[in-house]
Amino acid sequence: MSNSFGKIFQVTSFGESHGPSIGVVIDGCPAGLKIDIDAIAQDLDRRKPGQGAHTTPRNETDAFEILSGIHNGLTTGAPLCLVIWNEDVDSSEYDKRRFTPRPGHADYTAHIKYGGFEDYRGGGRFSARITAGFVMAGAVAKQLLQTIGVAIAARIVEIGGVTDPDKMNLRIEEALKEGDTVGGVIEGSALGLPVGLGEPVFDNLDGELAKALFALPAVKGVEFGSGFDAARLMGSQNNDAFTFENEKIISKTNNAGGILGGLSSGMPLIARVSFKPIASISKSQETIDLKTGKQITLETKGRFDPCPIPRALPLVEAMMAIVLCDFSLRAQKISLVI
Amino acid sequence: MSNSFGKIFQVTSFGESHGPSIGVVIDGCPAGLKIDIDAIAQDLDRRKPGQGAHTTPRNETDAFEILSGIHNGLTTGAPLCLVIWNEDVDSSEYDKRRFTPRPGHADYTAHIKYGGFEDYRGGGRFSARITAGFVMAGAVAKQLLQTIGVAIAARIVEIGGVTDPDKMNLRIEEALKEGDTVGGVIEGSALGLPVGLGEPVFDNLDGELAKALFALPAVKGVEFGSGFDAARLMGSQNNDAFTFENEKIISKTNNAGGILGGLSSGMPLIARVSFKPIASISKSQETIDLKTGKQITLETKGRFDPCPIPRALPLVEAMMAIVLCDFSLRAQKISLVI
Amino acid sequence: MSNSFGKIFQVTSFGESHGPSIGVVIDGCPAGLKIDIDAIAQDLDRRKPGQGAHTTPRNETDAFEILSGIHNGLTTGAPLCLVIWNEDVDSSEYDKRRFTPRPGHADYTAHIKYGGFEDYRGGGRFSARITAGFVMAGAVAKQLLQTIGVAIAARIVEIGGVTDPDKMNLRIEEALKEGDTVGGVIEGSALGLPVGLGEPVFDNLDGELAKALFALPAVKGVEFGSGFDAARLMGSQNNDAFTFENEKIISKTNNAGGILGGLSSGMPLIARVSFKPIASISKSQETIDLKTGKQITLETKGRFDPCPIPRALPLVEAMMAIVLCDFSLRAQKISLVI
Amino acid sequence: MSNSFGKIFQVTSFGESHGPSIGVVIDGCPAGLKIDIDAIAQDLDRRKPGQGAHTTPRNETDAFEILSGIHNGLTTGAPLCLVIWNEDVDSSEYDKRRFTPRPGHADYTAHIKYGGFEDYRGGGRFSARITAGFVMAGAVAKQLLQTIGVAIAARIVEIGGVTDPDKMNLRIEEALKEGDTVGGVIEGSALGLPVGLGEPVFDNLDGELAKALFALPAVKGVEFGSGFDAARLMGSQNNDAFTFENEKIISKTNNAGGILGGLSSGMPLIARVSFKPIASISKSQETIDLKTGKQITLETKGRFDPCPIPRALPLVEAMMAIVLCDFSLRAQKISLVI
Repeated sequence: MSNSFGKIFQVTSFGESHGPSIGVVIDGCPAGLKIDIDAIAQDLDRRKPGQGAHTTPRNETDAFEILSGIHNGLTTGAPLCLVIWNEDVDSSEYDKRRFTPRPGHADYTAHIKYGGFEDYRGGGRFSARITAGFVMAGAVAKQLLQTIGVAIAARIVEIGGVTDPDKMNLRIEEALKEGDTVGGVIEGSALGLPVGLGEPVFDNLDGELAKALFALPAVKGVEFGSGFDAARLMGSQNNDAFTFENEKIISKTNNAGGILGGLSSGMPLIARVSFKPIASISKSQETIDLKTGKQITLETKGRFDPCPIPRALPLVEAMMAIVLCDFSLRAQKISLVI
Repeated sequence: MSNSFGKIFQVTSFGESHGPSIGVVIDGCPAGLKIDIDAIAQDLDRRKPGQGAHTTPRNETDAFEILSGIHNGLTTGAPLCLVIWNEDVDSSEYDKRRFTPRPGHADYTAHIKYGGFEDYRGGGRFSARITAGFVMAGAVAKQLLQTIGVAIAARIVEIGGVTDPDKMNLRIEEALKEGDTVGGVIEGSALGLPVGLGEPVFDNLDGELAKALFALPAVKGVEFGSGFDAARLMGSQNNDAFTFENEKIISKTNNAGGILGGLSSGMPLIARVSFKPIASISKSQETIDLKTGKQITLETKGRFDPCPIPRALPLVEAMMAIVLCDFSLRAQKISLVI
Repeated sequence: MSNSFGKIFQVTSFGESHGPSIGVVIDGCPAGLKIDIDAIAQDLDRRKPGQGAHTTPRNETDAFEILSGIHNGLTTGAPLCLVIWNEDVDSSEYDKRRFTPRPGHADYTAHIKYGGFEDYRGGGRFSARITAGFVMAGAVAKQLLQTIGVAIAARIVEIGGVTDPDKMNLRIEEALKEGDTVGGVIEGSALGLPVGLGEPVFDNLDGELAKALFALPAVKGVEFGSGFDAARLMGSQNNDAFTFENEKIISKTNNAGGILGGLSSGMPLIARVSFKPIASISKSQETIDLKTGKQITLETKGRFDPCPIPRALPLVEAMMAIVLCDFSLRAQKISLVI
Repeated sequence: MSNSFGKIFQVTSFGESHGPSIGVVIDGCPAGLKIDIDAIAQDLDRRKPGQGAHTTPRNETDAFEILSGIHNGLTTGAPLCLVIWNEDVDSSEYDKRRFTPRPGHADYTAHIKYGGFEDYRGGGRFSARITAGFVMAGAVAKQLLQTIGVAIAARIVEIGGVTDPDKMNLRIEEALKEGDTVGGVIEGSALGLPVGLGEPVFDNLDGELAKALFALPAVKGVEFGSGFDAARLMGSQNNDAFTFENEKIISKTNNAGGILGGLSSGMPLIARVSFKPIASISKSQETIDLKTGKQITLETKGRFDPCPIPRALPLVEAMMAIVLCDFSLRAQKISLVI
């Protein structure tokens, strides 16, 4: 495993779904940043199951504790460790189906890679629950970015093929009734970026953002600006003409999504992320039994989250913020003592 | 800049479009690999301008030289350095338009980031020419992967909105006539992968591949398996049921694109990459003059490559191979002496 | 700050002397390792103040908690997080002398680097207390190395200039009476190493060990084998002749300290580490007041540890074990599932 | 192998003793630095064999070529690649004794690690010749450091036990007559450092310098300030009292060698490096034959360098400069465009 991300602003994730805790170490945060505890709690709340009418069975309170790195409410330059204690959960269901990997989950690949020693309970290290740690790191990163006037926001652009916000809930309810799930597309944007974030030719802004976003469970695609549509446009359509606006250089269009040559252009950064539908469904599914070597039908009981998209908004923001903090520090756009 | 990629199999890129050379250092290649020089040359040939009827003016011969790391035709465990000498080119055109950034290119962002010291000639470090170095590294990586039975191939799935291979050339010719360009989509696949390549939660197979692919100029989107379509499918549709085939575990469908939980599943790895149309067009474009602060119209003469997609096939393969080598070594699937 | 060490077996440290906790994340430990909790506790005990007759005032119990990465007593492949909770301590003394940096401590350099935001209480992040985290990581690393037959041990070779073990305690008592402190030299050794650990030319075994050992507070020098004496020997004296012993290749002498060309030779690895005397002394010392800009005399009350050397034995072992684990994994000498 | 060093200012080494070239890629050098070609050549000259009366047989001219990263004599922000072409050398001697590892050299460990595929000619990748690449990188680093007023110098403090400079040459001549070699100690110092370089707790200034210095062949020990003597001093003797000098904070003594808590203190940085005598001697030595499994006596003809110390001065400076550049960039003490 490799659970650290970032070169200067470095985030290290730990914890499992049914272990004692979920946590994160944030290293490289400059000293002197006032930490807004409420803002962290708010982002955790946005990530919590049960955002809309469609709840998951687990009632996550997600109260977090800061184990290090803060003195008098300010960062000290030392690593922050933030932890959420997992409440006692019943893992017996997972013990039973331990050798029958769920389709669409990491059960099978993790089992092979870790030789059966993986913590399989609740998906273990592959559970979406670990993103609570990402959210805490992202909330700190967002606060650090605010000091240089950078704001990050995510919005839902599509759920289960529906792009009209009014009809998205209906789509989710439909899926819920069928014991099924739907995915969607989230668009993350960052405003106020300085020109030149990114470190070509390999640590490009788009590449690093994509890598961070693929660390979110269920992500199957990432695009910037005109993205996959760019493949259908002519050069003359896709190129963004430069012009001046209030003596500032901007482009008339933003097909680049704010990234030129792997570097931020100063235009809004636009990333779109495709999430597959959650793999846990009530419908019966075919899988195999790793012990007996036989084909079986998997029946999973309980009530599942029919759509993760609303809860994933702070996740997309978190990953973008972590990457942008790292690049802002690398490009000396954030001073080390703030 | 950050010009190294990979943790164990590490590729370092150097060189500029109009400088003395383009090159690459490959570190971490196990000892004892027989290097097939012709295979490197072949991939360079596939990348060369002028693949079809549509040539770029520059006649790149791309003869390469191995500066280190080989003895008696075998790798020694030491870093390989491979270099292509740039032939003398006329940079006067670039001197003239140095302060008028071309839309869609990195001219503007590079100028700001590097304070005007960037090598602007021919796009300098941001030129697609530097991918010749990637191709050489990729060709070595492909040979290393062959030792464990992994094969990589890329194919064109779309050019300028056209998916019928017979009509793609027509689409390119149309663009050429208009002095315009078209992009496209390339699908890269890898067969024969062991289960479990990838190092979650941050160095996922999909994330690392995406990062590598975004290092290619003009890439605007990357997706795996059902990708952006996954957002429109139900869980029951998108989940890939497990089954046995000749006593081997496979999945009946491959919407996952061979990746589950950031790990290779043993199914074919399928990545699709969206390339925007090349930004250099003959049509006049609006831009600004950085010195005078005035809006200007840019007229670019010469003959341009109307579509980079055919030449980009070995690039996609190269980036995939580099990532897969690194993960194969990290997962001890390639032994250090081969 | 940069609080992660290691490429594959990666240790991330967090915590401060007077903050809530001291901890460590161990990433990259293979799955299936049975963790001996008692062995971790034992090494923490060896590190605890009050090893001999000479105690420090703080009574550290150092009970630790495992927050992640273990299931049924075995590692899962996921990161381990281990934490020691700091007990409530009185920081008032440190508040008072906050602007009068203690000679020999990091007070001054940390104050400048972190702009006064550093956690100054008890030395904060620069306190020797953070080595409790190193010791926990080292204890896990030692257990992992045992699976390939590698054993690590450290011994005191000198205290305050005294090399006769019988007289070392006297030397410490002398210092204690004078309100002064003494340093010493520890020799760490590793037996059972395979040939070829180390990754030249930059990640040499000796270089990486030295870097790890300099992470211990008070270390001022590191040498291997004949070390600084090598500078006084002739080549014919210092060269270790190769020979066979029971059909195994060994060297007749071991001036190399088990390292040739940055690689382990299979002979015992011998590292010697020089520790300066602890900077906290009862004697009055000259320093400055950063606020008033005046020279002052610092009088520090309380009872100090006159010599850290006995407690530093598990620290030297820990750093060696961490490095050797990382290289054993990199060289595929430890298999990923054990 | 792992041939890159540094996090932001990253040096990648390649090349072998008897291969086509020795080279280095310098990544992360800010744009706009005027490169003094003569200064690079001068440092290469200082490293060249035949500094005094005692020459090695190989006549190295060491003319170097810059393959990338410079435009109009200034750095561009892109990686610099510098290469020295190896002249044709006779490797037949090495072919003959390929399976009889020379005592004190890396022949044996490299043979085992790289499975016999290592380039054994002239020591291959383990030859001191590769330090020519380090010297080129160091020369660039020194020029970068000059822009912030940092100067680096190395001097010989001991040769073969002799500390009187007048008698050092005699000591070398003695060794030469006997067909033997002598080592020595070099002291490197850096002046003008800002306070706070270094990134605790693991990327300490001393630790990173030590790692870099151990990358030099023949180094067996590294110490800072009072170093190994610190183990023999009392705390009251070793602590450096703070005081003011011209309103600047200094310490009255410098036993710390300019490093407190892993951070530069603003006082002169003092590192001492112990070099063992060169392993190549004319005297006959015992070794083994890896093919026959028999003990043999090795007779090496030719004329060897009796003492590497004078040539190693620019090497010590180079490694120090590389580390200090990296930390100066990480601490934002060097601005990215200079």
